[in-house]
Amino acid sequence: MVIAGCSFTSRLITGTGGAPSLRVLEDALAASETELTTVALRRVSPDAEGSVWDVLHRNGIRPLPNTAGCFTAGDALRTARLAREALETDWIKLEVVADERTLLPDPVELLDAAERLVDEGFTVLPYTNDDPVLARRLEQVGCAAVMPLGAPIGSGLGIRNPHNIELIVEQAEVPVVIDAGIGTASEAALAMELGCDAVMLATAVTRAQDPVLMAGAMRDAVNAGRAARRAGRIPVRRYAQASSPAVD
Amino acid sequence: MVIAGCSFTSRLITGTGGAPSLRVLEDALAASETELTTVALRRVSPDAEGSVWDVLHRNGIRPLPNTAGCFTAGDALRTARLAREALETDWIKLEVVADERTLLPDPVELLDAAERLVDEGFTVLPYTNDDPVLARRLEQVGCAAVMPLGAPIGSGLGIRNPHNIELIVEQAEVPVVIDAGIGTASEAALAMELGCDAVMLATAVTRAQDPVLMAGAMRDAVNAGRAARRAGRIPVRRYAQASSPAVD
Amino acid sequence: MVIAGCSFTSRLITGTGGAPSLRVLEDALAASETELTTVALRRVSPDAEGSVWDVLHRNGIRPLPNTAGCFTAGDALRTARLAREALETDWIKLEVVADERTLLPDPVELLDAAERLVDEGFTVLPYTNDDPVLARRLEQVGCAAVMPLGAPIGSGLGIRNPHNIELIVEQAEVPVVIDAGIGTASEAALAMELGCDAVMLATAVTRAQDPVLMAGAMRDAVNAGRAARRAGRIPVRRYAQASSPAVD
Amino acid sequence: MVIAGCSFTSRLITGTGGAPSLRVLEDALAASETELTTVALRRVSPDAEGSVWDVLHRNGIRPLPNTAGCFTAGDALRTARLAREALETDWIKLEVVADERTLLPDPVELLDAAERLVDEGFTVLPYTNDDPVLARRLEQVGCAAVMPLGAPIGSGLGIRNPHNIELIVEQAEVPVVIDAGIGTASEAALAMELGCDAVMLATAVTRAQDPVLMAGAMRDAVNAGRAARRAGRIPVRRYAQASSPAVD
Repeated sequence: MVIAGCSFTSRLITGTGGAPSLRVLEDALAASETELTTVALRRVSPDAEGSVWDVLHRNGIRPLPNTAGCFTAGDALRTARLAREALETDWIKLEVVADERTLLPDPVELLDAAERLVDEGFTVLPYTNDDPVLARRLEQVGCAAVMPLGAPIGSGLGIRNPHNIELIVEQAEVPVVIDAGIGTASEAALAMELGCDAVMLATAVTRAQDPVLMAGAMRDAVNAGRAARRAGRIPVRRYAQASSPAVD
Repeated sequence: MVIAGCSFTSRLITGTGGAPSLRVLEDALAASETELTTVALRRVSPDAEGSVWDVLHRNGIRPLPNTAGCFTAGDALRTARLAREALETDWIKLEVVADERTLLPDPVELLDAAERLVDEGFTVLPYTNDDPVLARRLEQVGCAAVMPLGAPIGSGLGIRNPHNIELIVEQAEVPVVIDAGIGTASEAALAMELGCDAVMLATAVTRAQDPVLMAGAMRDAVNAGRAARRAGRIPVRRYAQASSPAVD
Repeated sequence: MVIAGCSFTSRLITGTGGAPSLRVLEDALAASETELTTVALRRVSPDAEGSVWDVLHRNGIRPLPNTAGCFTAGDALRTARLAREALETDWIKLEVVADERTLLPDPVELLDAAERLVDEGFTVLPYTNDDPVLARRLEQVGCAAVMPLGAPIGSGLGIRNPHNIELIVEQAEVPVVIDAGIGTASEAALAMELGCDAVMLATAVTRAQDPVLMAGAMRDAVNAGRAARRAGRIPVRRYAQASSPAVD
Repeated sequence: MVIAGCSFTSRLITGTGGAPSLRVLEDALAASETELTTVALRRVSPDAEGSVWDVLHRNGIRPLPNTAGCFTAGDALRTARLAREALETDWIKLEVVADERTLLPDPVELLDAAERLVDEGFTVLPYTNDDPVLARRLEQVGCAAVMPLGAPIGSGLGIRNPHNIELIVEQAEVPVVIDAGIGTASEAALAMELGCDAVMLATAVTRAQDPVLMAGAMRDAVNAGRAARRAGRIPVRRYAQASSPAVD
């Protein structure tokens, strides 16, 4: 997978929130084999020992600062600029949510923020709803990827509207990353089968009863879904079909 | 997984019908890492060179003869006895179907055949519908596993009634193997997340556009689903939940 | 709808269990416009004033005795014979369940009981699971209708496997009545759209917060689903289709 | 149902496009018992005999002009002003779609148009996607109702994301009308059960094989779903629940 000119072998992007300890987080990140991990700016203190930043750094994982907790384009811009300065990266996972209860993206503020951040030279990866029209608009203003939700953040509801995800995939010329809603391995596999380029998740791993085991499950599920998509599945049939008489 | 006292590391049981060539079949079986593979008796000629039997033998895969094409308990018994003699195994995958169009199991003939085969000393693995009551009955007459369908054979419709599969898993004291209906990787993962002990499939691999790639996808999907089940997934929530403030 | 030579205008068959009072039950039955209602034998005392029997009688509703609570063919036969004697009807809704927890039909006992009751001259309407093979077998032994479940009794889970219901409808030459699992109006409509000839429900009405209002909802839903089936719905399309330019 | 101070007994709003003839359209509208019907401005020639306008007028159905075919806020404003002048109504069903293939609303243009039309004194009923945030924004700028889609126009895919519709209903203080995607009666009933105040549909009726029969089905389905919502359905249960012992 190539995002903004950078190649990634892993198609699993992770978050860090919710882990019971830094130790467990580190083991889960290792098990996931992720190469790209989002962190909220406030969690990143490059000077501190034992920080999330430290964990990412020593595991060779690229940090992707996000604008979690921003409710307006203005907030998001300020946060993105601080992140760029602190982390020396112009990559930003753009989140502009509308309210605390649903944490759903605000489409107007999001598009506004995306356009302005692109203008300022950021590589913008926006967390968006599953609206194919908004996804296209975000691509048109220059986003490096689009990250539609499967379901609300932390809900574990899976992919509520696979049809919309397929519409987004069909039209996109930048990577499509399912973001939010994934609760278990089969849903991560399904996202890839629908044609997504990658899966982004946090809580599904960090708040599982065994985060490290779940991290490995997600890694395998993403690989499985990706391979199944490329392998060309059998068509769905209304009635049964016996196996062919024999190969020998 | 232990079936009738035999341990298996792999939880993916495969079939052989539908493969474009023996060469592709062999590569797909290797990619799947399966340790147990069903074969229709008519396809097994231990004396012939280049047979399916040969492929299984040299890859160390245990053959599981099946009674595909049998419509009555009597037919199934005769076929099972022939298989035992030819293959020197008393394991039998019992299939007694009701008609060509749906290939659905006939519950009455199936139960009758299962009981009689157990009496004759067979280790019986019955392909059954997804009725929890019939599954329990099959276990009660001494079957070594129960193999409920997800959907009709070759349909690729996935698991039509996850609720029934969960009911079967809750009550079973023998391994539960989903059998038939699986079309793609996410469905195999889901079967394991529902609590199945293994996944049985044939067409989904042999008739995929790239059988070898799909075989690897199914292997990973089964592992992913199994791990996700054990890892304890996050609960489903109606509303969003933000990641916790910080771990550091 | 014609069952065993008797015509019914209403396609909603109701039960009586669970109602908060006889008064509410009577109003709900009236609102439902049902013409056929099952009653457990133990609830029917033709001599008693104020009984369910009395309610049915004065509203011109045909009683359909059932064998609720029977776990074996023998139990069901005894109950059916008592009902015939007490109610002077040879119609029987045959229920032979496997256990208290799921109340799922026992396929072997059910088929056995059905065959014997038909031999004794009963008009048999069996409550069955959603297995198309068992449904066909029940028809073959002479049942006057088949009554597959949508989901376990009282679960309100709706129709768990619409594909199976469609298979049953396609092959049946006797009326198909969805029985059990319906929780709300849209599910009753769906049953009819799938091609069922009627809907049977009890708890969904009697235990609703407002049973009389729900009874009317179910009546309208059954009519709506039946009409929609006959009206020939538009095909499902992957993409949008604008309305035609103009009719004028 | 009250929209912008006007009461409606019927909760079924219809469209006129796609009907095979004016005669069939008129019969279908009558069967639907609708009181509010959208028409594209180009179809309305108040002076012409035998127009859709004529049909609505003589059946006492309130016309709701729409801005079908508009791709920008500017287009929509012009169309709305023309409609107001031609039809002497300030009600407008606002449609601003992004492309011909999906006919999905453009969230940015839609919100812009809505705000400006409200400022010009229109009573605005916007066709929107199923995003709860956009729905709330539309309400905040003064729309008289919100009309989220179930699925793309003319697709007959039903309600793809019931969870989003529920979120919209929970927060809305104006009527919520499901608009687009409904293909059959059970889906109309479901929309009402989810808490929608009304159902808007066109193609599902006009392009059914028997539009008049389907119109009646939709009328009954909307009533059924509305009553079922108010009646308080039984909770969903994982296991069976027998009817209570007896009411008598």
